[in-house]
Amino acid sequence: MYERIKGFRDFYPGEMRARRVVIDELEAAARRYGFREIGTPTLEPTEMYVDKSGEEIVDELYSFTDRGGRDVAMTPELTPTVARMVVAKQQELSKPIKWFSTRPFWRYEQVQQGRFREFYQTNVDVFGSAEPEADAEILAYCADALSGLGLTAEDFEFRVSHRDILGGLLESFDADVETREAIRAVDKREKVKRTEYHALLTEAGLSREQAEEFDALLDTDDLDELVEFAGTERVERAVANLENVLEAVEDLGAREFCSVSLETARGLDYYTGVVFECFDSTGEVSRSVFGGGRYDDLIEGFGGQPTPAVGVALGHATLSELCRRAGVWPDESLETDYYVLRVGDTRPVAARIARELRERGNVVETDLSGRSFGAQMNYADSIDAETVVIVGERDLANDEITVKGMASGEQTAVPVDAFPGEFERPTYDDFE
Amino acid sequence: MYERIKGFRDFYPGEMRARRVVIDELEAAARRYGFREIGTPTLEPTEMYVDKSGEEIVDELYSFTDRGGRDVAMTPELTPTVARMVVAKQQELSKPIKWFSTRPFWRYEQVQQGRFREFYQTNVDVFGSAEPEADAEILAYCADALSGLGLTAEDFEFRVSHRDILGGLLESFDADVETREAIRAVDKREKVKRTEYHALLTEAGLSREQAEEFDALLDTDDLDELVEFAGTERVERAVANLENVLEAVEDLGAREFCSVSLETARGLDYYTGVVFECFDSTGEVSRSVFGGGRYDDLIEGFGGQPTPAVGVALGHATLSELCRRAGVWPDESLETDYYVLRVGDTRPVAARIARELRERGNVVETDLSGRSFGAQMNYADSIDAETVVIVGERDLANDEITVKGMASGEQTAVPVDAFPGEFERPTYDDFE
Repeated sequence: MYERIKGFRDFYPGEMRARRVVIDELEAAARRYGFREIGTPTLEPTEMYVDKSGEEIVDELYSFTDRGGRDVAMTPELTPTVARMVVAKQQELSKPIKWFSTRPFWRYEQVQQGRFREFYQTNVDVFGSAEPEADAEILAYCADALSGLGLTAEDFEFRVSHRDILGGLLESFDADVETREAIRAVDKREKVKRTEYHALLTEAGLSREQAEEFDALLDTDDLDELVEFAGTERVERAVANLENVLEAVEDLGAREFCSVSLETARGLDYYTGVVFECFDSTGEVSRSVFGGGRYDDLIEGFGGQPTPAVGVALGHATLSELCRRAGVWPDESLETDYYVLRVGDTRPVAARIARELRERGNVVETDLSGRSFGAQMNYADSIDAETVVIVGERDLANDEITVKGMASGEQTAVPVDAFPGEFERPTYDDFE
Repeated sequence: MYERIKGFRDFYPGEMRARRVVIDELEAAARRYGFREIGTPTLEPTEMYVDKSGEEIVDELYSFTDRGGRDVAMTPELTPTVARMVVAKQQELSKPIKWFSTRPFWRYEQVQQGRFREFYQTNVDVFGSAEPEADAEILAYCADALSGLGLTAEDFEFRVSHRDILGGLLESFDADVETREAIRAVDKREKVKRTEYHALLTEAGLSREQAEEFDALLDTDDLDELVEFAGTERVERAVANLENVLEAVEDLGAREFCSVSLETARGLDYYTGVVFECFDSTGEVSRSVFGGGRYDDLIEGFGGQPTPAVGVALGHATLSELCRRAGVWPDESLETDYYVLRVGDTRPVAARIARELRERGNVVETDLSGRSFGAQMNYADSIDAETVVIVGERDLANDEITVKGMASGEQTAVPVDAFPGEFERPTYDDFE
């Protein structure tokens, strides 16, 4: 007996069915916005991730040397791949480029509740627009996708910020601040103890007093106050951009899901503008459900023409936690329209009925194992069959079959030639 | 600029759209038969493949040692994984177990026309029935799936055989035959020169004369002749089983797609009963499109209770070649219901219209880049928008918008409050 690899999952039909409903909804929403599906490879050159994220990323990668001597990595995220694809066809692709896809990614990380080494994401990106409407469309898409799953403004919120607000505020202190370090500290603000957080800020270059002043600024509701505090064009522009994005989000009907939250810094370094994270409003799912933002420099960094970009990666693991918490996780039971039960030498008729029901688009199972009446009924029960069509030798001698509604247990004889007849999806009620 | 890894593919939206239509059809057909979707991991223990296929398989694997010291392989096929999953929940799963899934697999092979190192398959399997109805259901499913793609009996055929017919015939020769070698030779019958083929048979232990006699038998239409020639119970049973399967296929309406073809041996060693391959009827796609068969011993070999099984792996690469050859490959152009074009300060109205059209399930794009009227029209053209809704400042001053049908070029003014109004998918024709 073989063991599944740690951090990887098998999805049996019930759970898979629920996951499929969720994936279909996320993708249908993306299609409505005119995002187009793409397909992407599982392996990429390892250097692509090292160049983007630094040598330390290798510790998290499933990377190896292939039989042709190539250093390859199982993709830990989609963004570098789509950036490569945009660069490869930069001339032919009409802008904006709007892509989505759903697939697994891999990181060699500590396995814990809701975090796996193989994890699934739906990625949605816009390339070629620097305007607030593009950021807004990503946010509105996320709101539509989550609403489509049955989640409401009571269930989730998008915490929205702009990387230059934090960066600009830090710059305005009379101190030699390591901006990256300080932003990473902010990203940990809710995750670590207050003293540890302040220690991280002072390590990044702020004095204790400055750290407290900076921290107080993060809680303000008044963006103008920040502009005034910093007194720089950088912060002024960032605040104006954030406000423009939120206004465009308002036009798209998704403003109610968004709150400004300056501590939303996102761990990743390549964001250049608006950033956001989705959180469970109740706090029960404590980590961010997913996140995204603007990354205007990546395509150029990959050797392409300067191409602004904004996108989101919806991680299915935390999203499913949110759905379960909110009571909207789809039903995991199987759905079967018909079980065609045969008794005795009746296969041609049973097969004809199964075939015609399938041609009408129904989910139909029939006996594959030559089992008894009772065993077939038990199986029909186990697959949640709505209707059982009994094709028995004695009934057939009278040119009849029996149609049984499994919920009520009621059954009736039906002329064999009348089934399924004109009906698309005949049930007991059509013949009683 | 980074290079894509050799043998791996990027799918841009046009090709991906056609592939998605194909995948959806293959999966919808599987669902109608009551096959249930499962999700499976990308990595498995390398030894799982070595135990099943021998040490030489490693040369074809993307295998490596992970950071935890595990010898892992990117799955080269699905069957061992589903066998592992069946064994892991053998007690809970009600039989027959009917599963399907679509995903990529990986083999380090020579890259050539229609063969890639990353390749996609839809796998469909039944576990727990040894009866001919199960084999027949797999064949009927394949026929339905291909018919659903628009392929007909003119386009493809299933060449069906039984592993024990070949094995039994070989056994009946007065010679010390290496059955595996001989069956592999038969599998190459159409692929290599006649002299080479005969050499392979003699290497396997047949005399020259026996090889010719054996070869002549393969072309017979009369299965009874084989039973008589061999004179063994093994061949008699195999022929009877094959005939029973074809009879059950007849009941399911798929007999017309099947021909008996003894040379269909399948390269893989684990088949135990009926085997089949799908071929292009015109021969233009020269290699088999896909294949499958019965493998009754695998689950037991994986440490489970004896569990008969039959399945098929539909490879998308050769299937797409067949679809293209037959002229039924889906349209690769994008589909867009609406482009909402805005001119001047009209974003709230344009956004409201886009939102309401999306709520009705339509594919809607709108300006994300603050572009000119002309640039927006060109973009609407490039995404094959069916209808352009023009929201202009001057029109809006009269509480009007303009609805333009892109095929005809005709346009008309519509009261802004009447759009989309009661309509699910309003076009120019609704307002002219």
